[in-house]
Amino acid sequence: MTERLACAVLGASGYIGQHFVRLLADHPRFELTTLATGDRSAGQPLGETWHLTEPPPADLADRTLVRTSASRLARSGVRVAFSALPSGLAGPLETELTRRGVAVFSNAADHRMDATVPLLVPEVNRAHLGLLASRPKGRAPLVTNANCSTTGLVLGLAPVLPLLRPKLVHVVTYQALSGAGYPGVPSLAATDNVIPYIAKEEPKMREETVRILGRLHRGRVHDLRLTVLPHCARVAVRDGHLEAVTVEATRSPSLGELERAWSTFDPLAALDLATAPHPAVELRHEPDRPQPVRDRWAGQPARARGMAAVVGRLRWEPPYLRFFLLSHNAVRGGAGGSVLNAELALDEGYLGSGGKGP
Amino acid sequence: MTERLACAVLGASGYIGQHFVRLLADHPRFELTTLATGDRSAGQPLGETWHLTEPPPADLADRTLVRTSASRLARSGVRVAFSALPSGLAGPLETELTRRGVAVFSNAADHRMDATVPLLVPEVNRAHLGLLASRPKGRAPLVTNANCSTTGLVLGLAPVLPLLRPKLVHVVTYQALSGAGYPGVPSLAATDNVIPYIAKEEPKMREETVRILGRLHRGRVHDLRLTVLPHCARVAVRDGHLEAVTVEATRSPSLGELERAWSTFDPLAALDLATAPHPAVELRHEPDRPQPVRDRWAGQPARARGMAAVVGRLRWEPPYLRFFLLSHNAVRGGAGGSVLNAELALDEGYLGSGGKGP
Amino acid sequence: MTERLACAVLGASGYIGQHFVRLLADHPRFELTTLATGDRSAGQPLGETWHLTEPPPADLADRTLVRTSASRLARSGVRVAFSALPSGLAGPLETELTRRGVAVFSNAADHRMDATVPLLVPEVNRAHLGLLASRPKGRAPLVTNANCSTTGLVLGLAPVLPLLRPKLVHVVTYQALSGAGYPGVPSLAATDNVIPYIAKEEPKMREETVRILGRLHRGRVHDLRLTVLPHCARVAVRDGHLEAVTVEATRSPSLGELERAWSTFDPLAALDLATAPHPAVELRHEPDRPQPVRDRWAGQPARARGMAAVVGRLRWEPPYLRFFLLSHNAVRGGAGGSVLNAELALDEGYLGSGGKGP
Amino acid sequence: MTERLACAVLGASGYIGQHFVRLLADHPRFELTTLATGDRSAGQPLGETWHLTEPPPADLADRTLVRTSASRLARSGVRVAFSALPSGLAGPLETELTRRGVAVFSNAADHRMDATVPLLVPEVNRAHLGLLASRPKGRAPLVTNANCSTTGLVLGLAPVLPLLRPKLVHVVTYQALSGAGYPGVPSLAATDNVIPYIAKEEPKMREETVRILGRLHRGRVHDLRLTVLPHCARVAVRDGHLEAVTVEATRSPSLGELERAWSTFDPLAALDLATAPHPAVELRHEPDRPQPVRDRWAGQPARARGMAAVVGRLRWEPPYLRFFLLSHNAVRGGAGGSVLNAELALDEGYLGSGGKGP
Repeated sequence: MTERLACAVLGASGYIGQHFVRLLADHPRFELTTLATGDRSAGQPLGETWHLTEPPPADLADRTLVRTSASRLARSGVRVAFSALPSGLAGPLETELTRRGVAVFSNAADHRMDATVPLLVPEVNRAHLGLLASRPKGRAPLVTNANCSTTGLVLGLAPVLPLLRPKLVHVVTYQALSGAGYPGVPSLAATDNVIPYIAKEEPKMREETVRILGRLHRGRVHDLRLTVLPHCARVAVRDGHLEAVTVEATRSPSLGELERAWSTFDPLAALDLATAPHPAVELRHEPDRPQPVRDRWAGQPARARGMAAVVGRLRWEPPYLRFFLLSHNAVRGGAGGSVLNAELALDEGYLGSGGKGP
Repeated sequence: MTERLACAVLGASGYIGQHFVRLLADHPRFELTTLATGDRSAGQPLGETWHLTEPPPADLADRTLVRTSASRLARSGVRVAFSALPSGLAGPLETELTRRGVAVFSNAADHRMDATVPLLVPEVNRAHLGLLASRPKGRAPLVTNANCSTTGLVLGLAPVLPLLRPKLVHVVTYQALSGAGYPGVPSLAATDNVIPYIAKEEPKMREETVRILGRLHRGRVHDLRLTVLPHCARVAVRDGHLEAVTVEATRSPSLGELERAWSTFDPLAALDLATAPHPAVELRHEPDRPQPVRDRWAGQPARARGMAAVVGRLRWEPPYLRFFLLSHNAVRGGAGGSVLNAELALDEGYLGSGGKGP
Repeated sequence: MTERLACAVLGASGYIGQHFVRLLADHPRFELTTLATGDRSAGQPLGETWHLTEPPPADLADRTLVRTSASRLARSGVRVAFSALPSGLAGPLETELTRRGVAVFSNAADHRMDATVPLLVPEVNRAHLGLLASRPKGRAPLVTNANCSTTGLVLGLAPVLPLLRPKLVHVVTYQALSGAGYPGVPSLAATDNVIPYIAKEEPKMREETVRILGRLHRGRVHDLRLTVLPHCARVAVRDGHLEAVTVEATRSPSLGELERAWSTFDPLAALDLATAPHPAVELRHEPDRPQPVRDRWAGQPARARGMAAVVGRLRWEPPYLRFFLLSHNAVRGGAGGSVLNAELALDEGYLGSGGKGP
Repeated sequence: MTERLACAVLGASGYIGQHFVRLLADHPRFELTTLATGDRSAGQPLGETWHLTEPPPADLADRTLVRTSASRLARSGVRVAFSALPSGLAGPLETELTRRGVAVFSNAADHRMDATVPLLVPEVNRAHLGLLASRPKGRAPLVTNANCSTTGLVLGLAPVLPLLRPKLVHVVTYQALSGAGYPGVPSLAATDNVIPYIAKEEPKMREETVRILGRLHRGRVHDLRLTVLPHCARVAVRDGHLEAVTVEATRSPSLGELERAWSTFDPLAALDLATAPHPAVELRHEPDRPQPVRDRWAGQPARARGMAAVVGRLRWEPPYLRFFLLSHNAVRGGAGGSVLNAELALDEGYLGSGGKGP
C-alpha cells in the first residue's frame, strides 16, 4: 500500500465530524491520527460521543477526542485536516492551519465564497481546483465542499445542463434533520410537522449553485448566468435531502437524450478515487422514487455508499423539465464531499511533498 | 332556531367521513340523522370506529353506523347527503341520490369535472353555484368540493390573482398522511421518509385549479388560462398540507398591496355561514410559518377551526412571488369544504322546499 | 356569574404555561389578567410565542407577555398564580408569592415533597388539601400537582386499590416529547427512536405515588406502604403518556368488580368543578386501546377534555393485574391538574376573602 | 474456499426475506441461488421490490424473483431453504421441503412449538439442536428461530439466569414497525402514537421463552419453570425492539457479578460461525442506552452487525433486577437468527451429505 497521509478530523464529536471518521477509518490514502474537538466531549472516547446509526469503526471506538490547536496539529505531523467545525469558528482556524502547512478540506461555509478557494464538487467542476494556483504564497491548499442541498442540486443538473441550457431553475427542498446537527431541531418542532424555513439556506443555494456551475477563466470563477429560485424546508427525516426541481429550458432535447445524459454521467471514471461513486447519478424508473429511506445510501462501490445522487420521476413538458432528486446530506453533501475533494487533490498532486501542487 | 335539514354522512367510518360527523354534530342548519357506511363497520357504534384525535361528539358516540341505500335514505326524510365515499363507488350512488331528491355535497372526485356540477370553493368561485341551474331536470343539487391540495392553492392564489395576473404557477406539496385515509400509507413507507408521488394528484391540481379560477359564462365554466406545474409528495405529517408556491406574475404590485389583498380577503363576510372562516386567509409574518402543527387549525370563529388557509414567508422578486401556504386537508380540503358548500347552497335557496333553487 | 378571581400564569411562553392559558381563558371562576414570563419572550404577544397545536384563545392572542415580580403581581390584585416555572426557579418565587398573599397552584416539582404542601390529585387524595391548615402563618395556600407520569398512575390505581391491596406495582412508561418542554429532546434523538431514560423521573414516580396514596393523619401524610418499580422512557409522541402497569395483588376480586370500580370512579361527582372529568377514568374494551392519538383528549364535559385517565387491555391472572393506562401529560398531568386543584381549593373555601380557608 | 451449499430464500420480497438476502449475499458457506416469492412480485428484479434502507447487494439487484414449488426447489439442487413465509402458508410448505431433502431454517411461527423441531437461539440453547435426532425419518432438518421479542429477551436473560434463578420475569416491549412487515401498521396508526397491542405476541413470548430456556432431556425439551408476564406495544421506530425487563430473583449476586456475566457471555467463541456476534451481548454504561437508532446494528465482526443484544440501565435492588435491552428484530430476531442457526447446524454436521446429521 502507498504511504498514507496523516490526517485529522476537526469537530469529531458532531454529526458531520463522525461521518468523516467513518469514511476515513481504513481509508487507502489517508490515515486518521487525530480526532479533535472544541467542545466538552474532549477527553471522552469516540464511542461514547457517537451519534450515528452506523456503529463507530471498531478500532477507533476507544480513541480519545482531544482539544488541540493549529500549531500542535501541524507539529504532530498531520498533513490534512478535515473540518466539520461550526461556521464562524471554522474560518480563522482553517486559515491558520493552511499557514502552518496543513491542507484543509472543509464542510464549513466560511471560506466557500472566497475568490481563491475552490468550492468543489469533483464530478461537476473539477477544473476549479486550479484556483489553488492563486492561493496566497506559502499556504497549504484549502478546499471547501458545497452546502448539502446545493451539492445534490448541481449533481442532478450538471448532466443535463448542456442539453437544456436553462436560464431559470426552481427548487424546493425536503431537508433532513441531520442537516441541523446536534441538538439542532427540537423534536416538538419536527414531529408531525414541516418547518418551511432554514436560516441562510436559500441564499447559499443561489450563490453556490451558480458558482460551482461557473467557468474558471484566468484564475477566477465566472458564475453561470442562471437564476435559482429556492424554497427550503425541514421535514421529519433523519438523513437524505429530497429536492423537487423544475428547470426552465431553452433547448428541447428528447427524453431519451436526457435519460442517457444522466445514466452515463461519470466524469471521474478514469480516476481511481476511493470514495467516488460510479455512476455519479443513479436514475430510477419506479413511479415513486427517489425516497430518503430507500435511496440515501445509493452509490457503488461499497466505499461510495451515500455518495451518488439519485434522480427520478422525470416529467418533461418543454420548456419545463421536472424531476425529484435525492442525496445524502451528511455524506455526499457533507463529509463525503470533502473526502472526495481530498482524494482528487491528492490525485492531482496538490498534497505532494510540501503541498505545492502539480 | 330555524328548522334544521335532516342530513346523512356517507362513509362515516372513514377519515373524511368522521370529520363530516364532527362538523355536523350540533350544526345550526343541518341535523345529522344517519351515519351510513358501506364497509364492515356497519352495525358498530360510531365511537368504536373513531379515527380522529379529536374525541367523537359525545351524543353521537353510541350511534350505530348503518348500511343503507339511496332509496331508503330518500324515504327516511334525509334531505342532504354529505359524501365521503371512495372514488368509483361515489359517482353512481351520488347521481342516484339526486334523482331521488336528496341533495349531495361530495368530497369524491367522480363528478368534479362534470360540466354541470359546481366544483366549489365558496370564497373563490361562489358564482359557479349558478351551474346548478343547468342540472338535469328533477334532480336535487350535486356540488363537489375540490381536491385537498387544490383547495389550499386556490384560496392562497385568489386574493392576489387580480394583482399578479400570472400565466404560470409552480407548486410543490408536502402532503399529510390523512390525505390517503385508512389504512393508506404503510408506516414503514412514511416513517423517516418522504414519498415523491401521489397517484392522480398532479393532474387533479392542474385541472381543478384552472376550473375553479375560471369564469362562469352562459351556463358553462371557462377555465382560466394558467399553467400549473405541480410536484406532489407525501410527508410524515398527520394533517395539514403545506405547499411551496412560486407565481410567475405579469404585473408588479407592491409587497404591501399583496399583503393587503390577503389580509382583507373575506368574500363571505356579508353572509352568515356557520363554517366560514373570517378572514378566509391568515397571513403570518414570522420567518418560519405556516407549519402543520401550528397552523392547521387556523380559522375563526371556533366553528371554523381548520377552515382558513394560512400564507407566509412571502418573497417577492418580480416577476416571481414565492410563498408557503397551509390548509387542513381533511377539514378545509375535505369535509369542511363540503359543509361550507352546503351552507352556501342553503343560503342561496338551492335547498329550499323541493330543492329547486332560487 | 360569580365574581372571578384575578389570576396569573407564570411561565406563559412554555408548553405547560400555554396549556394553563388555554384552560383559564374564559374560565367561570378565574380571570386571567397576567401572562408572566422570565425569558426573552417578554414583550411579545402571546400569539407569536404560541407552541400548541390548538390555536391560542382568540381574545388573548394579542396580549403581551410581561416580566414581573412577586411584589408587583401581588400589588396588581392577582389572587392566584398558576406556576409553570422551571424547577429551581419555581421554589423561591412561589414561596415569596404566598408570603405576599397570592395563592399558588404549581406544576413545578420544588415544593412537592414539602411536609405542609398538598401534593394533590383531587379524585385521589382530596383530603390532603387539609394540609393547608398546617401551612406557615400568614401565607396564602400553595398546592402542587403531581409529576405527569405519577398523575396518570394514581388515577389508574386509585379505583382498584381497595380491591387489590397490592404491595408492589411495576410500571413502564412510554412518555411523550412534550413532557420535556421546549427545546427539550433533539429531533435526531427522538425520530425513529426510544430513549430509555428521563432524568429524575423514576424517583419521582416512586416517592410521589406513595405520598398521594398515603393517608393524612394528625396534620401529616403517611405514605402508603407500596413499592413502585418504574422504568421510564421517552417515545416519539407529541402528547400523552402511556403506561404499562402490573399490580401484584394480595386480594382476588373478580374481573367484573375491577371493571365496575373503574367505570364508576367519580369522587368529584357531587362537586361543581369546571375542569373535573366525569367519570375520572374511562375504561376501554377494544383490544388495542388506550392510544395517545385517540385517547389523550378523553374527558367529559368539553371543558374537561384531556383530564380523564383511560384504562384498557385488562389482563387479570391473580395475583397479577396488568393493564395499560394513558393520560394527557400536559393537561391532566400538568396545567389541568393545577387548575382542578385550584377549583377544589376555591370550592372548599381556601381562596376566600383573605385566603384563609374554611 | 470450501464448497458452498446452494440455498434459497422463500419470501424474498418481504422485509425479513430481504434481510435473508442481504445476509446470504457473499456468505462463506451458503450460495444464494434462488429468490422465491409467492406474491405478485414474481417476475420482478429484486432491486425493484427492495424495501430496506441498506441498498440491495449489487450483484443480486437484477436477479429475478421466481414463483416456485417444493419439488422444483429440491430438483434444482437447493440444499437449504431460508423461510420468511407468512404464518399459515409456511407450515405445510416447510414440511414438504424437508420431505424432499431440503433443510429448512425458518422465521415463521408455524413449527416453533413442534416437539421435534428445535426452537433455537445458538448462544442460549445450542443443545436443543439435538432434537433433530428425533425428527421423522427421511426428512431433512427443520429448525426455527424464535419470535423477535423473545430472541432479545432470552439473549439478555441467559447470561444472568444462573446467578439470579428467577421465578418471574416482567417484560414490557417497545417494538419496531418492521416487526409487522409490509404493509403492516398504517402510518396514521403509527405516527405520533403507540399501539398497546400486537396480535399473538404476548403468548409467544411466554411460551417460547420458557421453551428456549428449558432443558433437553431424553429427546424432549422440558420448559423452564418461569413465569413471563409481558406487555407488548408498537412504537414509531423502523427497526429495533427495546424491552424493559424486571427480573424477580431468588439469589443475590453482586452487581459486579451480573455485569461480568453479561460482558463475558460468548458461548460460541470457540466456533467459527460467520454471523455469530462476539460478544453475544454488549453491555452499555451510559445512562440512556440502549436506543434503537444507536444500538440496533450492534455486533462484531462486521458480518455480525445487528446480531448482538445490547443491555443497559441496570438497576439492582434485590430481589428486583431491572434493565433495558435491545435487539434488531429483523436481523437478530429474524433473518439473522436463522442464518446463525444454519451455520451452527452445518458446523455440527446436520447439513452434511444427505443432511443426516453427526
